[in-house]
Amino acid sequence: MNCGYETISFLSDYGTDDEFVGVVHSVLRSIAPQATIVDITHGIPPYDVRAGGLALARSAQYLCPGVVLAVVDPGVATDRRSVAVEVGNGESVFVGPDNGLLAPAVAMVGGASRAFSLTRTDRHLKSPGPTFAGRDVFAPAAAYLANGLNLTDLGEEIDPSSLIPTVVPISVEEPDGLNAEVLWIDHYGNAQLNVDPVELHPLVANDNSVQIRIGEKLCSAQLVTTFDEVPNGKFGLIVDSYGLIALVLARASAADDLGLSCGSPVVFLKSDTRLSVATKVDLARQSKEG
Amino acid sequence: MNCGYETISFLSDYGTDDEFVGVVHSVLRSIAPQATIVDITHGIPPYDVRAGGLALARSAQYLCPGVVLAVVDPGVATDRRSVAVEVGNGESVFVGPDNGLLAPAVAMVGGASRAFSLTRTDRHLKSPGPTFAGRDVFAPAAAYLANGLNLTDLGEEIDPSSLIPTVVPISVEEPDGLNAEVLWIDHYGNAQLNVDPVELHPLVANDNSVQIRIGEKLCSAQLVTTFDEVPNGKFGLIVDSYGLIALVLARASAADDLGLSCGSPVVFLKSDTRLSVATKVDLARQSKEG
Amino acid sequence: MNCGYETISFLSDYGTDDEFVGVVHSVLRSIAPQATIVDITHGIPPYDVRAGGLALARSAQYLCPGVVLAVVDPGVATDRRSVAVEVGNGESVFVGPDNGLLAPAVAMVGGASRAFSLTRTDRHLKSPGPTFAGRDVFAPAAAYLANGLNLTDLGEEIDPSSLIPTVVPISVEEPDGLNAEVLWIDHYGNAQLNVDPVELHPLVANDNSVQIRIGEKLCSAQLVTTFDEVPNGKFGLIVDSYGLIALVLARASAADDLGLSCGSPVVFLKSDTRLSVATKVDLARQSKEG
Repeated sequence: MNCGYETISFLSDYGTDDEFVGVVHSVLRSIAPQATIVDITHGIPPYDVRAGGLALARSAQYLCPGVVLAVVDPGVATDRRSVAVEVGNGESVFVGPDNGLLAPAVAMVGGASRAFSLTRTDRHLKSPGPTFAGRDVFAPAAAYLANGLNLTDLGEEIDPSSLIPTVVPISVEEPDGLNAEVLWIDHYGNAQLNVDPVELHPLVANDNSVQIRIGEKLCSAQLVTTFDEVPNGKFGLIVDSYGLIALVLARASAADDLGLSCGSPVVFLKSDTRLSVATKVDLARQSKEG
Repeated sequence: MNCGYETISFLSDYGTDDEFVGVVHSVLRSIAPQATIVDITHGIPPYDVRAGGLALARSAQYLCPGVVLAVVDPGVATDRRSVAVEVGNGESVFVGPDNGLLAPAVAMVGGASRAFSLTRTDRHLKSPGPTFAGRDVFAPAAAYLANGLNLTDLGEEIDPSSLIPTVVPISVEEPDGLNAEVLWIDHYGNAQLNVDPVELHPLVANDNSVQIRIGEKLCSAQLVTTFDEVPNGKFGLIVDSYGLIALVLARASAADDLGLSCGSPVVFLKSDTRLSVATKVDLARQSKEG
Repeated sequence: MNCGYETISFLSDYGTDDEFVGVVHSVLRSIAPQATIVDITHGIPPYDVRAGGLALARSAQYLCPGVVLAVVDPGVATDRRSVAVEVGNGESVFVGPDNGLLAPAVAMVGGASRAFSLTRTDRHLKSPGPTFAGRDVFAPAAAYLANGLNLTDLGEEIDPSSLIPTVVPISVEEPDGLNAEVLWIDHYGNAQLNVDPVELHPLVANDNSVQIRIGEKLCSAQLVTTFDEVPNGKFGLIVDSYGLIALVLARASAADDLGLSCGSPVVFLKSDTRLSVATKVDLARQSKEG
């Protein structure tokens, strides 16, 4: 049984220049005036389901129990399903498109206990066109859930294992070192990597430096615990606020400086790789000189 | 009699980089702490009264009954009037400058039942300078209305027919076809046109395509019901979420691709126009060759 | 004794593209669900403590009594203190880093009555990394204060006079005129100066014009009371909504036009300086001609 929810957390790629977010708030409030809406962010890059999924996952453990409305929906009005995914046996319900957006956050909080397809069109807003499902399909579902409507009254139950998953890239140990990738570049230009601190330990030299390769570029980064410890002209590696390794600068954008974007590969070189790189260069010189 | 309002919806061109929106929220909350504020958007381009008016009109039918505070006010502190416009015999009240900003939304919800000029300066905040009427004039009026103050206590009643109208352009049938115009470019680059689906029907070919002319450029667009149906390398025409025709691309910005901005003209060509265009070209070639 | 606070006002440099603001809201609401959060702005330029401090000071007199949470914190996780600063004998409490950010606003509302360092780590969130003090240190402190927790339960009392001050530049009378500086450029491109209207009076000519020098450039500006009075092709000087002089254009950006940014020097020339400038030029010409 659903006793209702006091909080609706809301994430989207709507931006804030149009009235999309305000209209969804208005629809939510029209149906569930007692609920409080918390905007997670509406700055997900347009259509970027992966970025939205990662932002939702980073937020998940901090969100208030309740309804989580998430809309990054390039396939709106196609046959992709609209879903409500229950977690924690009803502690929270995620509402959004079934395109992988919800998957990382749902996994983060323990997986789906039940899932429903929002097929009850009598619960949708009547709309002049099918392209604003956030307003017409997802917001009403979220608001009705906040009011205590049961999931079974929103549509048909589906197998949670049929939900579209998201592939979050994991870093890979290769002969040359740890092959990682940029997951997220934040507002300050810090580049979060898919690297856990324990993965990095074997690659750290005695002076707390690590050699990294980005494209053709080799550079050195220093393990630090605060941004202000990053030496001038060097990069820093910090355990960020989510417990992952981030490539940073002091009071400047590491991403701008290194030309990084989401998905950029970053290789942490093994000590012996570093040696062999150095050696190859030396040999080349010698052969030229020879 | 005014029993008060629970919701204050708020639209402006203040942007979110300065503290303007936060200060207005603070003033509203200081006077009417029980009211809930819904931000429609603050991303209207600076001084763009027409864009603000259209955004407000698009939102109007979804807003919660209550006070609607709208501020796009290039003529602040001149003799333009500050007004409160009642609609639906008191269901809602629009508060803002009398410069055409409120007109499209007021018309959309049935027109003004009464209107007042906010001449009671004892209801304004004392202010060190006259340039922030949102804070000093409009926000207090909105908050007092939310508290149940009567409109008659905010200033003198004025004739609703004296309110500044807005001219929203309508599309025009010309010999060459339907001459339309871009009303709005949204966050995704979709270009909403002042074209109703029924106006377009006579111009659609058997293969669901329509020929359009934008400046000197001729191109073909396909009628679709979802963004993902738009064929690669072609444009789509969709009935958007407000019931108007929009020129779109799949997961990309049609406006960027076509160089469109608000007000850009778009002509939907008649079949015979398309023929005659083709013929003219052929003739020209023949005469050159002849 | 702290009876709790109903409002938490919140300013930061977090931007709105990431989930930072939403996560802080979620933490605040998890601990203090009854409090209302008012976002002042999150658009302070990254790391710009001075800009954040000025925005907070401009807002201060309009904020609802309560907790003011402010985070612009380039030195996060260094030994800079995290503080709660009480003003008005408990009417409000400012929570944030001790780096000068809070100082102008605290001064504006009468100075600190007490101050505390947030050393009670059992009041912080456990966190995987130390870089998000807004979420882990400041938000919990703000929320506990809203709930009525005493300041003494957040950490050790410190001497308010030990708080880091901010140096807000004041304009200086020099032989050539009043040497001022741009404090703030708002969303519309208006440039607020550190000049009080009374300082300007002696420099105004009979036709209400003032001569200004910006870098090498000399230009004339007209005293106006509304933006729309600014003559075409001229600049305006207006008493802005905070009571300071701002350099403006009608419906355009004075800052863009003049290439101004925060901190840019602006000199208001004395009448005799203007004469001597003119004379020097004339003499130079004469000597060339002679």
